[in-house]
Amino acid sequence: MKQVLTDLQLRDLRHVWHPCSQMKDYEAFPPIVIKKGQGVWLYDEHDQRYLDAVSSWWVNLFGHANPRISKALSEQAFTLEHTIFANFTHEPAIQLAEKLTALAPQGLHKVFFADNGSSAIEVALKMSFQYHMQTGKPAKKRFLALTDAYHGETIGALSIGGVGLYNEVYQPLLLDTVRAKGPDCFRCPFQEDPASCNAPCSQFVEEQLQAHHEEITAVIIEPLIQAAAGMKMYPPVYLQRLRALCSHYDVHFIADEIAVGFGRTGTLFACQQADIMPDFMCLSKGLTGGYLPLSVVLTTEQIYDAFYDDYGTMKAFLHSHSYSGNTLACRVALEVLTMFQEEQVMEMIQHKGQYMRALAMEAFCDMPYVGEYRQVGLVGAIELVKDRRTKEAFASEERIGYQIYQRALTKGLLIRPLGNVLYFMPPYIISEEEMSFMIHTTKETIEQFFQDRGAKVG
Amino acid sequence: MKQVLTDLQLRDLRHVWHPCSQMKDYEAFPPIVIKKGQGVWLYDEHDQRYLDAVSSWWVNLFGHANPRISKALSEQAFTLEHTIFANFTHEPAIQLAEKLTALAPQGLHKVFFADNGSSAIEVALKMSFQYHMQTGKPAKKRFLALTDAYHGETIGALSIGGVGLYNEVYQPLLLDTVRAKGPDCFRCPFQEDPASCNAPCSQFVEEQLQAHHEEITAVIIEPLIQAAAGMKMYPPVYLQRLRALCSHYDVHFIADEIAVGFGRTGTLFACQQADIMPDFMCLSKGLTGGYLPLSVVLTTEQIYDAFYDDYGTMKAFLHSHSYSGNTLACRVALEVLTMFQEEQVMEMIQHKGQYMRALAMEAFCDMPYVGEYRQVGLVGAIELVKDRRTKEAFASEERIGYQIYQRALTKGLLIRPLGNVLYFMPPYIISEEEMSFMIHTTKETIEQFFQDRGAKVG
Ligand SMILES: Cc1ncc(COP(=O)(O)O)c(C=O)c1O
Ligand SMILES: Cc1ncc(COP(=O)(O)O)c(C=O)c1O
Repeated sequence: MKQVLTDLQLRDLRHVWHPCSQMKDYEAFPPIVIKKGQGVWLYDEHDQRYLDAVSSWWVNLFGHANPRISKALSEQAFTLEHTIFANFTHEPAIQLAEKLTALAPQGLHKVFFADNGSSAIEVALKMSFQYHMQTGKPAKKRFLALTDAYHGETIGALSIGGVGLYNEVYQPLLLDTVRAKGPDCFRCPFQEDPASCNAPCSQFVEEQLQAHHEEITAVIIEPLIQAAAGMKMYPPVYLQRLRALCSHYDVHFIADEIAVGFGRTGTLFACQQADIMPDFMCLSKGLTGGYLPLSVVLTTEQIYDAFYDDYGTMKAFLHSHSYSGNTLACRVALEVLTMFQEEQVMEMIQHKGQYMRALAMEAFCDMPYVGEYRQVGLVGAIELVKDRRTKEAFASEERIGYQIYQRALTKGLLIRPLGNVLYFMPPYIISEEEMSFMIHTTKETIEQFFQDRGAKVG
Repeated sequence: MKQVLTDLQLRDLRHVWHPCSQMKDYEAFPPIVIKKGQGVWLYDEHDQRYLDAVSSWWVNLFGHANPRISKALSEQAFTLEHTIFANFTHEPAIQLAEKLTALAPQGLHKVFFADNGSSAIEVALKMSFQYHMQTGKPAKKRFLALTDAYHGETIGALSIGGVGLYNEVYQPLLLDTVRAKGPDCFRCPFQEDPASCNAPCSQFVEEQLQAHHEEITAVIIEPLIQAAAGMKMYPPVYLQRLRALCSHYDVHFIADEIAVGFGRTGTLFACQQADIMPDFMCLSKGLTGGYLPLSVVLTTEQIYDAFYDDYGTMKAFLHSHSYSGNTLACRVALEVLTMFQEEQVMEMIQHKGQYMRALAMEAFCDMPYVGEYRQVGLVGAIELVKDRRTKEAFASEERIGYQIYQRALTKGLLIRPLGNVLYFMPPYIISEEEMSFMIHTTKETIEQFFQDRGAKVG
């Protein structure tokens, strides 16, 4: 079926190389041109609207073109848009740093600014390594990361990633990362129930630490949800085990809260459900409510102090980006954090999480091909399987999730999948009615897809 | 001398870890709190103003809080702030891609979006490598870069950098880069005049290519100015040589125009002075006129085509950032490019460049300790030396540039140096009067500094 493309679509395809895309796919599935956003909705050039159930890659918290945030941004733009951030500073950065350190797990007192998620990860890796160099442990130069981890796309971040789809082709360029099998609750090798287990699977990390701790500078982990791998969820006890192991083996704990931070999991930061303090916490995405690239790395006085010395000792951390501490982005982030305080957002997430869970359990739990519906906070995920009993997966070549995603779009729902996992990660301002639309449209689309597929196969 | 700090300064120092800084330096030289910006001026909390002669790390083009740009940003914020950029698109990105490809060296038809400069570099490195993997040259997995190169701070970008100050401590984490001695016109080993030479120093790259071309995927270079190394300038003929060498040895040419793009050198892109087409061109900084982090990599149809295939072949370029193609930043960049067209910016740069050169030559050329004043477009640099005849450098521990920088600030001038190099890279909207203030305040500060130093030493 040949599509008739609009002028803007044609122009897009002439010059734009889209991220995370096989551009040939766009022949059959051309880019959707968004003209405006409002609340959870994105409107295309034909005024067709789509409910943004993935918060535009997990960044949006308070809806598109949110008037309060836009106003703050606009005012800042007419006052001070940006200033060099070495030897210079500004109130939005200062206030933001104060709020972040007050809200984060106790002990994370220092805030280092970068501009995207991957760069925040690179900052944490470099800081951890340099810390050990400067405190007499130069042998610590490898990182330990989990299977199915995702931490970004720059060479350092990609090196610690465990999703082959993203980094396999680049193997010759990557750091030699120590890899440990991570938690896998849906197909738990110990047949445990995540609601009550003691995380016996943390032994895989323990084994690697035992063997390699002298050369390992840090363990990095996505707390509670391995997001890009398919919203793989695991219980807080795992983080507690890991924290204890890191302390025991004198290895830093880097919490990558880029996807899960800012309320997503039901607490402001996911680490707080395990009541642990990481040595580094990386934040981005929701930090600006989905408006602008900005990231921060929070860390301790102890780490900071190892870099604090006379200039001539050359111990400084010289990492910078041109737009480090960007005033506009800091002002937006500040507004977002103020909204958390003033608009009782955590209660809202609690409430909406319960509502979503009830709707979703009813909708999906007995469906064929649904291996599991799982949820933490305002993140819900459906894992589609070929066989519910054996949990056998669909082959990735079948692109089951991708096909359902395309169909859902024709019904006004944007649920970009991760392989065979469909997930919901809506803006927090989603209404009950909109949640109902999201859940029921998903159910309907899955049903129709498998019906048509059955008809074709059968 | 103990300083009395303001409340905001104290609060900043409590939590903010500044980029590219030894934080202990802030004890004697506390952070300056900027409240507002206007034109070339930044205003601190006491309403003291500073002429931003470094365009806040080379990003600002049209002045701080520029009303036209702020208006465009503000309007966009109330319409659509951001949308996921995989399978989705928007008019600001489409128009920006059209303008960029129309203005760039002919043949660079495809635009890939990222968010900061370092990430654009990582994109180019990964694309080049993957291109060769997918076209039957998997042995090409090293990059060739120059001594004194600077390309950013993420592990990939840092690996190709040649400034030890930034990457030496991280050696064990870095890629094994092939290094060639770059041009060094101020201390030319061939005693050539850059105005007329034939770039004999390109032989150093040639030697490395000859020896290693089979394993080299790309050469990366900062066209015309190695900026972070101290505004080291070299003539276009060097780029022509390099282009020829790359074509001969089947190696990509990556032009890092992050610092020099958008008119800085007197042409819209520095490569245009050499009339060459790189295989990849990385842009950031001035792209948004100093407002927001955004970066792009421009490349050819030929490169694009090597990734264009059925999904199942797994040839796609899967790099992404959460904020890839950010609508707000694209809208701002679009306004900046429109200003280039409507406000005759290139003529303005030409004219102001001449004016600055005349002022600076008169001011600096016969000063003691000034080894050279050099300029390209609207970038001027003073290289301070211990001995004008031998060009012997000041030891970096002396921090000559840093001390002059501090003194100039007390006179309302911001010229953050690079080692012993003071430079001018002002916003394009600087007036003749402001240029005169910038040049004469610099001269006066240098004179007083060396007088006081002489008195102390003598
Ligand atoms: C030539 C060059 N390349 C790359 C970069 C890195 O850009 P960013 O600081 O935005 O990561 C810079 C920044 O100073 C640069 O000057
Ligand atoms: C957990 C996690 N870490 C890091 C990143 C990378 O952030 P960015 O895409 O802004 O570079 C992501 C982005 O998806 C993420 O989910």
